[in-house]
Amino acid sequence: MTNMIRAEVITIGDEILFGQITDTNTQWIGTELTNIGIRVTRKSSVGDQADAILQIFHEAHQRADVIIITGGLGPTKDDITKKTLCTYFGVGMVRNAEALALVTSFFEKRGRAMTDLNRAQADLPANALYIQNDWGTAPGMWFEHDKRIYVSLPGVPFEMKHLMSNRILPKLREHFKTPVIKHKMIRTVGIGESFLAERIEAWEDALPESIKLAYLPSFGGVKLRLTTTGNDEATLDQQLADQVEKVLPLIEKNVFGFDEDELEVVVGRLLQERNLTLGIAESCTGGFVSSQITKIPGSSAYFWGSVVSYSNVVKVNQLGVDPSTLDQFGAVSEETVRQMAEGVRKALGTNVGIATSGIAGPDGGTPDKPVGTIWIACSTEQRTVARLLRLGQYRDQNIQLTSTYVLNMLREELLSMNAEV
Amino acid sequence: MTNMIRAEVITIGDEILFGQITDTNTQWIGTELTNIGIRVTRKSSVGDQADAILQIFHEAHQRADVIIITGGLGPTKDDITKKTLCTYFGVGMVRNAEALALVTSFFEKRGRAMTDLNRAQADLPANALYIQNDWGTAPGMWFEHDKRIYVSLPGVPFEMKHLMSNRILPKLREHFKTPVIKHKMIRTVGIGESFLAERIEAWEDALPESIKLAYLPSFGGVKLRLTTTGNDEATLDQQLADQVEKVLPLIEKNVFGFDEDELEVVVGRLLQERNLTLGIAESCTGGFVSSQITKIPGSSAYFWGSVVSYSNVVKVNQLGVDPSTLDQFGAVSEETVRQMAEGVRKALGTNVGIATSGIAGPDGGTPDKPVGTIWIACSTEQRTVARLLRLGQYRDQNIQLTSTYVLNMLREELLSMNAEV
Repeated sequence: MTNMIRAEVITIGDEILFGQITDTNTQWIGTELTNIGIRVTRKSSVGDQADAILQIFHEAHQRADVIIITGGLGPTKDDITKKTLCTYFGVGMVRNAEALALVTSFFEKRGRAMTDLNRAQADLPANALYIQNDWGTAPGMWFEHDKRIYVSLPGVPFEMKHLMSNRILPKLREHFKTPVIKHKMIRTVGIGESFLAERIEAWEDALPESIKLAYLPSFGGVKLRLTTTGNDEATLDQQLADQVEKVLPLIEKNVFGFDEDELEVVVGRLLQERNLTLGIAESCTGGFVSSQITKIPGSSAYFWGSVVSYSNVVKVNQLGVDPSTLDQFGAVSEETVRQMAEGVRKALGTNVGIATSGIAGPDGGTPDKPVGTIWIACSTEQRTVARLLRLGQYRDQNIQLTSTYVLNMLREELLSMNAEV
Repeated sequence: MTNMIRAEVITIGDEILFGQITDTNTQWIGTELTNIGIRVTRKSSVGDQADAILQIFHEAHQRADVIIITGGLGPTKDDITKKTLCTYFGVGMVRNAEALALVTSFFEKRGRAMTDLNRAQADLPANALYIQNDWGTAPGMWFEHDKRIYVSLPGVPFEMKHLMSNRILPKLREHFKTPVIKHKMIRTVGIGESFLAERIEAWEDALPESIKLAYLPSFGGVKLRLTTTGNDEATLDQQLADQVEKVLPLIEKNVFGFDEDELEVVVGRLLQERNLTLGIAESCTGGFVSSQITKIPGSSAYFWGSVVSYSNVVKVNQLGVDPSTLDQFGAVSEETVRQMAEGVRKALGTNVGIATSGIAGPDGGTPDKPVGTIWIACSTEQRTVARLLRLGQYRDQNIQLTSTYVLNMLREELLSMNAEV
C-alpha cells in the first residue's frame, strides 16, 4: 500500500442530506478514480452551511491527497461553495476573464439576456486554476494547497462528468504517479449470495492475500469483484485471469458476463451473433423491459419494437391473444403469457418474442393470485417456454426483477439454440 | 436551532467507494429522518476496513445524536460491521436466540439447507437490542451508548426500508422529542434555474429569516424548496403556505405540482379527472415514457398501452404511419411524429395519444438531423400538436428529457382542453 494516493469525495448541498435529490455523481467519480489507481477512502455529504463545509475540508485535508468537491456552484444565493473555499484558503474572490467570456458566449449563443447572477459565476477564489466547463456556466476549479489537490466541480451530472473526463482525470494522472488497482467483476444471475459463497468457499479460502473478494448483491444477481493492487498492469491482469479461470467452472451456469457487461448488452450480443430480431410484449412491466433494451446504443440492430398491453383490449387487438383465453384463465396466466410472446413475434414480424404478465402491486392481488404473481415467456421459431415467478409486494422491485428474469430466460433460450445448431 | 436532533448516516462497503453499486439508501434515509424532524448533518461512506469504520464511528459520536449505519452485515467474509461494532463498544459477540429462530424459519420456509455462514447471522454484539428483519437474514440492531443512538441495518434497500419504516423510525420518534422541520416543494418545468431566480428575486429577497429557499435543478425542471423549523406544525405549514401563495402568481405557468408530485402522477390525475385514456407511440424513447407512466400504481385506470416502434415496419403496420411519409420526410420528422400520435390513438382506441421520434445518439446523426434532434407530438380528439426538441449528445439524457417534455406537452394539452369545455 506504499504510495497509494487517497481521495475523498465531498458533495455539498442540503438537498442531498434531506434526500431530495439522488446523488449519482459520487458513484461515477468513485469508478473513475478507481480506474486510474486512486483509492477513494471516504465519501461525505454536508449541507449548505459554511461551518459544516469548512469542517469537512479540514478533516479531508488530514486524510487525503486529493479532495473532489461537487455542488454548491449554482448562480443562486443558497450556493456558497466558492465563498467557503475563499475562507478556507484565506484568499479573496476575483472575476476571471476567461470564465466571463465563456458565460457571455453561452448566453449569446442561446440569444438570452445575461443577469448579474450569471456574471458572478465567473468569480473565482484567487488561487483557483480555472477549468473550462463547455456544458454550463458554473466553472471547474483546481487548487494546489499544502501538498493536496482540491477540485471543485458543478453538481449537475453531465457537466461534472464532462469536466472530470476531459480535464480533471488527465490532470490527476499527470500530477501523481499512482500504483495500479485492477478489478475483475464476475456477474451472476439466478443464485443467492450465501449459496454462491458456499459453492465457491474452497476457492475463496485459497485466494492469495493480494487478491480481495467482494460479493455485491443486486436485483436478481450477485456480482463477484476481485481486486488487486500493484505496479504492473499486465501482471495484475494475469493474476486476476488465473483466479477467474479457477472459479468459473464452479458457477458457470450462473455467469452471464464480466465487468461492465449488463444483461441487456449480453442479450443484444447473442441476438446479433444469431442474426435474430426481438419483439417484446409487456403487461406488468409496462415498458421497463423495452427501456432496458433500448438504453443500449445500437439496439435498433436487433430490437424492432414492443407492445405494452396494459389493457386486455390491446392484448387481443395488437397481440392476438384469444379473448376466450383471457376469460378462462385471466390475463395473469401461463396461457395468456404464451400467446403474448407468440403474438408479438407474429405482429411485429420478429424471430423472437418475450412477454410479461403479472400483478406488480400494490393493488390487484387476489387470494389465488397475490401481488407478485408474474408469468414470463419466451417464444422462438423452435419453441415457447413460460415460467411463473412468485415475487414480493413492492411494485418497483417486481418490475425490475421481472425484467431481469425475462431477459435471463431469453439469454438461456438463445444459448440453447446455439447448442442445437 | 435549540434541541435539534442531529443525525449522521454512514454506509459501509468498498463497493460504494469504488462506484460499483448505486447508493439509494442514504437518500431515502435522509428523507425519512427529515420528515420526523431529525436533521441529517452529514453522510459518509467508508470501506470495509476496521480502522476506517472505527474512525468514522468516533467522529460521528462527536457530532451527532443518532448514527444510522447501513451495510456490511451480509453472511460473507468481507462484511465486518458487526465485528467492528464489538470493538467500538468494547463488547463480545453473542448468538441471539430470537435471531437464530428467524434465520432458521427463513430457510425452512424456503426448503433450503442452512449454512454456518447463515447461522452466524444471528450473532450480535452483546449490547445490541435485536431488531427483527422480516425480509431477510441480516438482523437490525439498536444500541444506546454514551447518550447516542446507534442503529445498524442491512444494506439491501428493501430490507433496510422495511426495518426503518416499521421499527426504527417509530423508536426514534419515541426516544427523542424533536422540533419539527417542515418543507414545501414547488415543482417547475420548462424554465432554467437562473431565469427562475430572476423572476422571483423580489419575493426571495423579502423572505423572512426563518424560511430557507433552495433551488434543486433536475432534468427539464427546477424544484423550489422552502424550509422552516419550529415547534408547531400548523404554524409552520401556514408560514409556508403564505409564501407559496405569494410566489405562485410569478411562475404559475411553469408549476406542475408540489412536494412529491411527479409529472407522470399529475398527468395521470388530469387524465382521470377528464375520464380520458392514454396510448403512447415511442420511437427514440424506446419504452421509457411508458415505464414512467406505469411505475405509478393504479395507472391502468387511464393508460391502455403503447407501441414501441423502433423499426419502420412497426411504425407502418402497428401505428398506420404512411410509408410515403417515411420515404419523403424520414422517421424523424413532424409529419411522422404526428401520424404516430394519431395512429396510436386509433390503433389502441384511446382518447389521447403521445409520440416521440428522434435521434437519441450516440450514432445515427446527420448534418441535417444531428443527434438530439427529436420530435414530440400529442393528439387529442380536438387537435394534434407537435414540437421539435434540439437536445444534446447524451443518449440517457435525451431519452429522459424527451420523456419530461412529451409528458409536459400532454399536461398542457389536457389543461387547455379543460379551459375549452
